[in-house]
Amino acid sequence: MKLQLSTWPEIESYLERSRCIVVPIGSTEQHGPTGMIGTDALCPEIVADGMAEQRELLIGPTLSVGMAQHHLAFPGSISLRPSTLIRVVVDVVESLAGHGFEQIFFLNGHGGNIATVQAAFAEFWARSSFARRDSGLNLQLHNWFQGRRVGRLSRELFGDDEGSHATPSEISLVLSAYAEAARTVALQPERPPSGPIRDARDFRRRHPDGRMGARSELASVEHGRRICEAAVADALDALG
Amino acid sequence: MKLQLSTWPEIESYLERSRCIVVPIGSTEQHGPTGMIGTDALCPEIVADGMAEQRELLIGPTLSVGMAQHHLAFPGSISLRPSTLIRVVVDVVESLAGHGFEQIFFLNGHGGNIATVQAAFAEFWARSSFARRDSGLNLQLHNWFQGRRVGRLSRELFGDDEGSHATPSEISLVLSAYAEAARTVALQPERPPSGPIRDARDFRRRHPDGRMGARSELASVEHGRRICEAAVADALDALG
Amino acid sequence: MKLQLSTWPEIESYLERSRCIVVPIGSTEQHGPTGMIGTDALCPEIVADGMAEQRELLIGPTLSVGMAQHHLAFPGSISLRPSTLIRVVVDVVESLAGHGFEQIFFLNGHGGNIATVQAAFAEFWARSSFARRDSGLNLQLHNWFQGRRVGRLSRELFGDDEGSHATPSEISLVLSAYAEAARTVALQPERPPSGPIRDARDFRRRHPDGRMGARSELASVEHGRRICEAAVADALDALG
Amino acid sequence: MKLQLSTWPEIESYLERSRCIVVPIGSTEQHGPTGMIGTDALCPEIVADGMAEQRELLIGPTLSVGMAQHHLAFPGSISLRPSTLIRVVVDVVESLAGHGFEQIFFLNGHGGNIATVQAAFAEFWARSSFARRDSGLNLQLHNWFQGRRVGRLSRELFGDDEGSHATPSEISLVLSAYAEAARTVALQPERPPSGPIRDARDFRRRHPDGRMGARSELASVEHGRRICEAAVADALDALG
Amino acid sequence: MKLQLSTWPEIESYLERSRCIVVPIGSTEQHGPTGMIGTDALCPEIVADGMAEQRELLIGPTLSVGMAQHHLAFPGSISLRPSTLIRVVVDVVESLAGHGFEQIFFLNGHGGNIATVQAAFAEFWARSSFARRDSGLNLQLHNWFQGRRVGRLSRELFGDDEGSHATPSEISLVLSAYAEAARTVALQPERPPSGPIRDARDFRRRHPDGRMGARSELASVEHGRRICEAAVADALDALG
Amino acid sequence: MKLQLSTWPEIESYLERSRCIVVPIGSTEQHGPTGMIGTDALCPEIVADGMAEQRELLIGPTLSVGMAQHHLAFPGSISLRPSTLIRVVVDVVESLAGHGFEQIFFLNGHGGNIATVQAAFAEFWARSSFARRDSGLNLQLHNWFQGRRVGRLSRELFGDDEGSHATPSEISLVLSAYAEAARTVALQPERPPSGPIRDARDFRRRHPDGRMGARSELASVEHGRRICEAAVADALDALG
Repeated sequence: MKLQLSTWPEIESYLERSRCIVVPIGSTEQHGPTGMIGTDALCPEIVADGMAEQRELLIGPTLSVGMAQHHLAFPGSISLRPSTLIRVVVDVVESLAGHGFEQIFFLNGHGGNIATVQAAFAEFWARSSFARRDSGLNLQLHNWFQGRRVGRLSRELFGDDEGSHATPSEISLVLSAYAEAARTVALQPERPPSGPIRDARDFRRRHPDGRMGARSELASVEHGRRICEAAVADALDALG
Repeated sequence: MKLQLSTWPEIESYLERSRCIVVPIGSTEQHGPTGMIGTDALCPEIVADGMAEQRELLIGPTLSVGMAQHHLAFPGSISLRPSTLIRVVVDVVESLAGHGFEQIFFLNGHGGNIATVQAAFAEFWARSSFARRDSGLNLQLHNWFQGRRVGRLSRELFGDDEGSHATPSEISLVLSAYAEAARTVALQPERPPSGPIRDARDFRRRHPDGRMGARSELASVEHGRRICEAAVADALDALG
Repeated sequence: MKLQLSTWPEIESYLERSRCIVVPIGSTEQHGPTGMIGTDALCPEIVADGMAEQRELLIGPTLSVGMAQHHLAFPGSISLRPSTLIRVVVDVVESLAGHGFEQIFFLNGHGGNIATVQAAFAEFWARSSFARRDSGLNLQLHNWFQGRRVGRLSRELFGDDEGSHATPSEISLVLSAYAEAARTVALQPERPPSGPIRDARDFRRRHPDGRMGARSELASVEHGRRICEAAVADALDALG
Repeated sequence: MKLQLSTWPEIESYLERSRCIVVPIGSTEQHGPTGMIGTDALCPEIVADGMAEQRELLIGPTLSVGMAQHHLAFPGSISLRPSTLIRVVVDVVESLAGHGFEQIFFLNGHGGNIATVQAAFAEFWARSSFARRDSGLNLQLHNWFQGRRVGRLSRELFGDDEGSHATPSEISLVLSAYAEAARTVALQPERPPSGPIRDARDFRRRHPDGRMGARSELASVEHGRRICEAAVADALDALG
Repeated sequence: MKLQLSTWPEIESYLERSRCIVVPIGSTEQHGPTGMIGTDALCPEIVADGMAEQRELLIGPTLSVGMAQHHLAFPGSISLRPSTLIRVVVDVVESLAGHGFEQIFFLNGHGGNIATVQAAFAEFWARSSFARRDSGLNLQLHNWFQGRRVGRLSRELFGDDEGSHATPSEISLVLSAYAEAARTVALQPERPPSGPIRDARDFRRRHPDGRMGARSELASVEHGRRICEAAVADALDALG
Repeated sequence: MKLQLSTWPEIESYLERSRCIVVPIGSTEQHGPTGMIGTDALCPEIVADGMAEQRELLIGPTLSVGMAQHHLAFPGSISLRPSTLIRVVVDVVESLAGHGFEQIFFLNGHGGNIATVQAAFAEFWARSSFARRDSGLNLQLHNWFQGRRVGRLSRELFGDDEGSHATPSEISLVLSAYAEAARTVALQPERPPSGPIRDARDFRRRHPDGRMGARSELASVEHGRRICEAAVADALDALG
C-alpha cells in the first residue's frame, strides 16, 4: 500500500490497523560508468515494494536526494548538506508522528546517509529528552545492503568483487526492476576499494570512474531477483 | 532522459549539448476523499515525462515532499517547514550549478510550494548579490496548473466545478497515468472554495473533507490525457 | 493610534476594544534616478496613517528593511536574506500573539517581500500545525499597490507608463507626504519592463537606471493624494 | 542626509565623499506608564537628525525592533530573539559593506541590544577571521545614553531619580521632538532599580509598572533639548 | 605537548615540524552507579596523554560535552543537540585548518558522538565539495574503545561482562588516572544490554541504573593501566 | 565537588541539598609570547576549585573553547562563532535546568565571551518570555577578572602594566597552578593597549605579539596565589 497512491480516509483506516510506515530513503549520485545515478533511491523502493507484497504495509514517498557531498565531482550527483537532511528527516518524522504513526522504518539505500540520519533521529529525540517527556516513537534505520541474507548472498555471488560503491549487488537490484538500466561499457581495473571518504575532489582522485573496488559489470537481472528476495526478507525481519 | 536512470558519463555528454534540467517538485498531502495523497508530486512527474518525449530534456528526481503544513490535520499528509524546503532547494540548485547546469526549471505541482520556492531562489541569488558577483543561473518555477492552455481546458471541462484543491483537473492527470488511482466515493456537497489558508486545524474546519470547492468526481482518464497534453505544451513554452 | 507613540497601559486598554494591529512592512532599495530609497517603507506608512484617520486602529512600527537582494547592485540598497526576514516576521508575530492580538495585518509596500512574508506566515503556522493545535491567528499580507481601487486609478493616470518598479504611483504617494522628495532628473528611455528577477548584477544589466518600465517622472503630489485615498480604501476593505 | 529620502545616484555621489553611515537601532517596548513604547527607537533617530544638522552624514533607516524579550509581559512590546537580531545586523552590514561603506556607526537607544549587537559584529568579523582575510570594516556601537556629556547632564538634572529604564532623560528626549508624547499619570513609588534581568514574567514581578528606579515624571521638553544637544556632541565625538 | 599549555610561538614552531593535532572529544553523562559522569571525556584525555608520551604530538583542548540526549533522564548528564555539536566541530576544524593543520584526529570517548561527528565532517567537507575545490584536510574520528588491541583485551579481561555502557574497561581507564574515582556500591543485576537507543525516558526505563549490560564493578586500576597501553597503541596506529 | 568526577546518584543527592552549579567557561587563544593558549579556560577552572574548597559547590565541566574570532591570526587559537556559542550555552543550560538546577553560575575567563554569553542567556529566556511562562532560572555570568578584590589587587601589583590581554594577573593565576607554564622570553615594548577589536588580521596588525598593553613578564606564582584568593572571594560573593 503506497501512501502516494492512497487517499486520506484510507490512511485513517490503516492507522486503526497499524501504526507502522516504511520510508525509502536514498541518494542521487554517480554509481560508476554503468550504474544508475538513482541506484540508491531505486533500491530501497524496489525492496519496499517487495515487503508490501508479503505483508500489509504502508510505504511512504521516497526521499530521493540524500547526503552525497563526496560524489559532487561527478556530473549529475545531487546532495543535501547534513544539516539540511537532518531537518528534512525531523520534519517528516514530526509530520507522521502527529498522525499517530509509532514505528517509522527508514529503508535506506546509501551508506553516506547513515550518520546523518542517525544524527537526525537524535535531533528529534532530543526534543523529548530535553523536555523530559516521552516521545513514544520507534525510529529505525535499516540499510538493505547490510542485512544478513544480503551479505551472505553478495559474498556468494561476487566475493571480493562486490567492493563498496557501484557494487554488482546494488546494480543487479536495479536491473531486476528497470530493464532499461543495463549498460555495456568496458571498465578499467579499479583502484583499491579501501580509503577514507573526504571531499568530492579527493574522492574523484582516489576513484576516477566512481567505483570503489567493485566489478559492477558482474551485475545481472537474475542476481538482482535473488538479492531482492534476500533484502525483502532481511527488511521484514528488521521491521519485527 | 531521466537523471535517475542515467550514468554520470551520460550526464557529462548531455552537458555538452544542453545546460538545462527539469526538476519536478510536489507535495505529499491529502487530496480529498478520492484524490491520491501523491497527486502534487505525480502530476509534475507525468508532465515532465511528456516534455521529455517531445524534446531532449534531462528530468531530475522528483522532490515529493513539499510545504503542506496546512494539510497536516488529514492523515497521511507530510510537510517540510518553509525554512527546511528553502535549504533543500538551495542545496539542489547548488549541486546542479556546480556541474554546469544554467537553467534549472522547477516543474511544480503544488500551490503551497510557490512562495517558499520563490523565497529559496532569492536565498540562493542573495549569495551572489551580497557578494556582488554574477550567479549565471536561470532558476524558473513553473506551476503546471497555471499554464494558459491548462487554464482554458480546465474551464472548458469543469467550469466552476474545478475549485482549487483536489480539482478534477489534477485528479484526471493522475488517472491518465495511474489506473489504480480511481476511487468511487459519494462526495458531500462542498463548502465555499474561497477563504484564507492558515494552520492545519483551521483548514480542516473550513474544508472538512479536504476539497476546496472542487467536484473531484468529475475526473476521468480521458480528461487527464487532454490536460496532460496541454500541460506539456504550456511547460515547453515556459521552458523557452 | 501609533504603537510607537503609546504607553503600555494604553495598549492594554486598546486590546479590550480590538484585537487588530496594522504593521507596515517595506524595503530600503533604489527606486530609479528620481525615486526615494525608502519608497517601499514610506508608502505603507503613509497609507497606514490614512487608515488610522478613518477608523480606530493600532499601527505598529514600520519594518523598513525587507527582501531586496536583487537591488544590491545599486548604492544604498539594503536587504535581508529571505531566511532572515522569515525569522523577523515570526518573532514579531509571536510577540504580538502573546499579547492577545488576533489579526495582524502586514501592510506591504514591496513586491519582493511577498513570497518571503507568505513563507514566514507558513513557518509560523507550521508550529501549530505540526503540534496539531490551533493558532487562533489571522495573519494577512496586503500589498497596497495591488488593491482594486489603486489598480484602476494607476491605469487611469499612467496607463502603460506605470511599469513595475519606481512607478509613478508609488513615487506620487511618497510626494504626497514628503515634499522634499521631489527630484528633477532627465530620465533615459526605459528598457522593456518585463523580464525575470534574478541576482543583483543581472538585474542592473537589465535595468541600468533601476526603473522597470516606469516613467517615474509622471509622479506628482496631486496624483499621490488620490492614490493615497484609493489605497486607504482598499486597505480598509482588506482589513474587513 | 537620510538614506530613505535619497536616490541611489545621490548615494553614489556621497560615497565619493564619505564612507560612513549612521544606523539608528532601537527597540519597541514598554517604558513605564508614561513613556512611549517607541522611546528606544525614537531617541537615536532624534540624535541622528541632530548629528546630520552639524555635519554631512548619511543616516540609514531606523531598525525599530530590537532585543526586548524581558519586556514581553507588558502589552505592546515586540522583540526579536538574539539569534534573529544577529542575522539582521549581519545582513545590514553586509549590504552596506558591498556598496563601499567602511564605517558603520550603529547609534543605539536600548541597553538590551548591546550584547546582541556586539555578538553580531563578532559574527560578521568571524567570516573574515576564519578565512584569514581582512574585513576592512569599522563597525561601531554607540549608546547615546552612555556618552560622557549625557551622563553628566543626567546626573545634574535628575541625580538618583534617573534610574535605568523609562528614565526621565530618555522620555525628555522623546518629548523634545514629539509634543504628543506627553502623559500625565500618577506614578506609584518605584521598587529598587537594581536587580537582574531574566525572563519577561520575572521582570514584571520585579518592576510591576515597567520602570526601573526611574522617576519618569521629571521629564520635560526643555530637559530633552539639552539632552539632545549633549547626545549629539557625544555621538559626533564617538564617530571620530 | 598540550595546546592549552603552550604559547602561540611554540605552536608556530610545531607547525613547521608537523601538521597534525589530536582533539579529545567526549561527553558528560551518567555512567551507572559507580562510573564517573566525566568518563567519556576523561578517557580520551588519558589516552591522548599516553600518545604524547610516545611521540611528539600536539593535544588540543578536550571537548567535554557531546551528544548525550538519551542520558538526560539521569541527574548530571549534559548534552548538546546534534545540530549544535555539528557547528562546534565545524568551527573547531575551520579554526585549525586556517593555521595550517592538515590532519585533525578526533580521539573520541563516546559512542553517541560517532554519527554526529561524522555528519559534522561531511558538513565541513560539503563546503569544498559544493564549491568544487579541494579541502586538503584529513579529518579522522578514532573511538579509543573500538581499537583492535582494546577489543581483544576487554574480551580477555571481562568477556560478556563488558557490556556497552559504564563498561569495566572505561571505568578502569578512568581509575588508572583518577584514584578518587573509585566507588563501592552494590550493583543490581543488569537488564539485557541490547536494545535500541531512543529518547531519555525510554532509555532510563530500559536501563534503570544507567548501565547497559556491564558489570562495572569489575573495573580496577590495574586493568586500567593495561587498557590504556592498548588504547594508546591502537590510537597511534590509527593516526598513521 | 566536580561533576566530571561524580556519579549520577551523587548528583541526585546533591540536588536535594542545593540547586546551584558553577560552570567554568573560557577560551583557547593566544596570550602573547609567554602566556598559555589555555589561560582563559584554566583561570576559571582554578578559581572554581578554590570556591569548592570553601563551600560545598558542584563544578561542571569547563567549556574550553569560546568566542575568540579576533585571535585567529595567531597559531593555535580556536574559536566558536557567536551563533555557535549561543547554541552551546543554551543546550547546556537546558540540560541542567531539566535536572532541577535553578542557579547556573558561568564563571568566565574571557572578555570576548561576555557579549555572546549574555546574548545566549537572552536567547534562553526568550523561550519563556515569548510563551509568557516562567523560566524559574537564575543564570549568572561572572568574570573573575572583573571582581572588586581582583581589580584592587591587580592595580596594586601591576598598575598600568596590567593591560587588557595576556595580563600579568591572568598569567600569574595560571602559574599558581601550573608550574610548567613559566616562560622566559624577551618581550618587545607593547603598542598602546587601547583600540577597537575587529577581525583577526586587524587585531594582529595592532598587537603584533598578541599582548594588549600588558607587561606579561611581571607574572609570578606568588602573585598568582594572591590573585586566586581574591578571585575566589569575589566569585563567592557574586554567587550570593
